[in-house]
Amino acid sequence: MSNVKKIIECVPNFSEGRDLEKIEKIVSPFRGKDGVKLLDYSRDEDHNRLVVTVVGEPEAVKNAVIEAMGVAVEVIDMTKHQGQHPRMGAVDVVPFIPVKNVSMTEAVELAKEVAKEASEKYGLPIFLYEKAATNPTRENLANIRKGEFEGMVDKIKQADWTPDYGPAEIHPTAGTTAVGARMPLVAYNVNLNTNDIEIANKIAKNVRFLNGGLRFCKAIGIELKDRGIVQISMNMTDYTKTALYRAFELIRIEARRYGVSIVGSEIIGLVPMEALIDTAVYYLGVEDFSMEQILESRMME
Amino acid sequence: MSNVKKIIECVPNFSEGRDLEKIEKIVSPFRGKDGVKLLDYSRDEDHNRLVVTVVGEPEAVKNAVIEAMGVAVEVIDMTKHQGQHPRMGAVDVVPFIPVKNVSMTEAVELAKEVAKEASEKYGLPIFLYEKAATNPTRENLANIRKGEFEGMVDKIKQADWTPDYGPAEIHPTAGTTAVGARMPLVAYNVNLNTNDIEIANKIAKNVRFLNGGLRFCKAIGIELKDRGIVQISMNMTDYTKTALYRAFELIRIEARRYGVSIVGSEIIGLVPMEALIDTAVYYLGVEDFSMEQILESRMME
Repeated sequence: MSNVKKIIECVPNFSEGRDLEKIEKIVSPFRGKDGVKLLDYSRDEDHNRLVVTVVGEPEAVKNAVIEAMGVAVEVIDMTKHQGQHPRMGAVDVVPFIPVKNVSMTEAVELAKEVAKEASEKYGLPIFLYEKAATNPTRENLANIRKGEFEGMVDKIKQADWTPDYGPAEIHPTAGTTAVGARMPLVAYNVNLNTNDIEIANKIAKNVRFLNGGLRFCKAIGIELKDRGIVQISMNMTDYTKTALYRAFELIRIEARRYGVSIVGSEIIGLVPMEALIDTAVYYLGVEDFSMEQILESRMME
Repeated sequence: MSNVKKIIECVPNFSEGRDLEKIEKIVSPFRGKDGVKLLDYSRDEDHNRLVVTVVGEPEAVKNAVIEAMGVAVEVIDMTKHQGQHPRMGAVDVVPFIPVKNVSMTEAVELAKEVAKEASEKYGLPIFLYEKAATNPTRENLANIRKGEFEGMVDKIKQADWTPDYGPAEIHPTAGTTAVGARMPLVAYNVNLNTNDIEIANKIAKNVRFLNGGLRFCKAIGIELKDRGIVQISMNMTDYTKTALYRAFELIRIEARRYGVSIVGSEIIGLVPMEALIDTAVYYLGVEDFSMEQILESRMME
């Protein structure tokens, strides 16, 4: 019986969304390994990008990720890559996410180990980002990636943009990579019974961090044209500090001033159970609840 | 990598809550076995009773339970047993509960296998109950157990009370046992800001099945004297059909007519995550949500 089993998640993004043979090769290091569970991989032809979701024991996940990075460096040629999603390398970005019994400090440590080993093995320049960033300018992935693959040739030679690991020049075919650590993202959208995008935009501004709203909430207004309604589309960047229900209730309050109401919401992709348990505990006003009371939580110990 | 891993829960109740040495012997078959996880065991001296909670693969759990039943038959002497909780045997009751990728039909099948094997091995008369019951009179455990250990000597000889397995007479020291299958119970209590027990009793009647309320809800009113408030204490007997939030909202509606309101609620012991996810999905109005979106759910596959 194992005690305190550590579980980390990794969501590497690779710049290949079309060639199924190459995709299978990149994914294969995540299959059939003890301590590694491939939860999902999805490719997008327009983005020309592959997003893999894997969980497991930190050491086992680390080794599988490094192996897959090597495959991607080998099979992807960025000089020929086109796609709608911004990208700067064959292995574009590798975030590590603490799931169970892993601290953010440990996730950052793991990101650094992966960055170091992969840069040495494959001659890849690697930037650390988000919680692993070595300076504030590098926290935001968009800042690092600005200029994309084509622009990185020169950018990487600037004093400000020396990579954290590896050579100060791009890999000729694999470009550059960002490796980091972050909290789990929850993609959470709230739908309103209006087709007025201005209302959605105003509410999005009120709830998001950028304009004075909730600390761990990014939000934009979007139109759902086929349904004739608008949506507040959010990324909850730390549900342990900015709870889903808080964003939901804030949207409800803001919507009221426009005579508009919430018609429903959506959770896109995976969500850690705690994000929803937390919400249930709030609405039911449960006193003294502990996550240890969740049957499934005990089963994973 | 295993596909579709089946997980069953078993919560056997043994008639020993005082002798720690005997308790350790009874619990020991659940320790250190592949495919079996001992989640909890708690004894109560007044009840003189031990409740074990174990989960795991059906076959492994079955074998461990049969082994523990054997130990209990050996170490417990019902002719000397006294305690506040009703009981009819050394192994008083053994419910199997589907947790993941197990149907109720499979849980019933497992209960029957355990009943058959244990009755043959230990000469125990065994009744099947709840979902495993062979007739409606035996669905309710209280009906079977009525008369308790002392009364079973004669009761078991009546035509109506021939056991489903084993001899038609009690085991001289271990009495009789009930083995069955049921949905997970959720012990859920809602607190009101009044000390008037009559209000709690009336609301309990309105929400419980017995008096015309929710199908899978048992409820009583109780006083929390130290806090000066009352509580609707509930057993939710199938949260997949009678959701927790429905009982909560119904209590809120009923409380309103007495000018009383809910001050909080409590979940006692373990709760399957789905019972709370379901509640969060309701309050947030999440559209098209699937349990497969829960990260932890995917990790256990």
